[in-house]
Amino acid sequence: MPRTCSIARTLAVVGERWALLVVREVSLGVRRFRDIQEATGAPPAVLTARLRALVEAGVLTTRDYREPGSRARSEYVLTDAGRELLPVLIALKDWGDAHLTDERGVPVVTRHEGCGSAVHAVLVCDEGHPIECGRGLRPDVRVP
Amino acid sequence: MPRTCSIARTLAVVGERWALLVVREVSLGVRRFRDIQEATGAPPAVLTARLRALVEAGVLTTRDYREPGSRARSEYVLTDAGRELLPVLIALKDWGDAHLTDERGVPVVTRHEGCGSAVHAVLVCDEGHPIECGRGLRPDVRVP
Repeated sequence: MPRTCSIARTLAVVGERWALLVVREVSLGVRRFRDIQEATGAPPAVLTARLRALVEAGVLTTRDYREPGSRARSEYVLTDAGRELLPVLIALKDWGDAHLTDERGVPVVTRHEGCGSAVHAVLVCDEGHPIECGRGLRPDVRVP
Repeated sequence: MPRTCSIARTLAVVGERWALLVVREVSLGVRRFRDIQEATGAPPAVLTARLRALVEAGVLTTRDYREPGSRARSEYVLTDAGRELLPVLIALKDWGDAHLTDERGVPVVTRHEGCGSAVHAVLVCDEGHPIECGRGLRPDVRVP
């Protein structure tokens, strides 16, 4: 029987193609359908389905906006739960930066607004010990 | 045009369904096809394709083993690059633990072998400032 696993459960919410790129865009302040579509390259019908699923899962929420002369439309913002996906995005980014850059280098440096230095996703234990290169981990299975 | 992005590049390697669950299993020491198949629930033909792609991408490598009376077979181990995906897995796990547990609680606690306390994926900047709830980040686009 497949393992009971929070990774699998999270992938059931954000593992479909385009879902994490949508979260990326909204986290960057790109909130409108057309802009998200352009920045991700997702086919519009797929994007519609992804946005709906992410709203249903509580990752995104909608709010209305109205441009002069137009009817009200929805734009998308991250919920707190959506913002808590940032470590997933930055961990994916760090890996791509390390292993998949071309001669142009790292596409985006994510900086800490306060001090301006680069932000990364790292593993630490509750005692504050760093985990180097994913070594020295031990799974403690609670729900088989 | 879609954004140039290390997240998208990483998802091109590990974003297909089952790929990250395969990396999870191998990281847990589950190395043989049949065992990975059972622990993930991936259909065998899909698993074959995923394992091949992960080897080609340099995430997994193979080594031979032979059981008494059987021919040599391959088992899978993480490369260093594969082990560097652990922050992605733990970040996905943390989110599922926070948002998608049932009444049985957190399925697995990942512990630091050294001190036994729980390990999490967190965002920090190079100056050591913690990033709370994915707030206070600023993208610095280098390759448009």
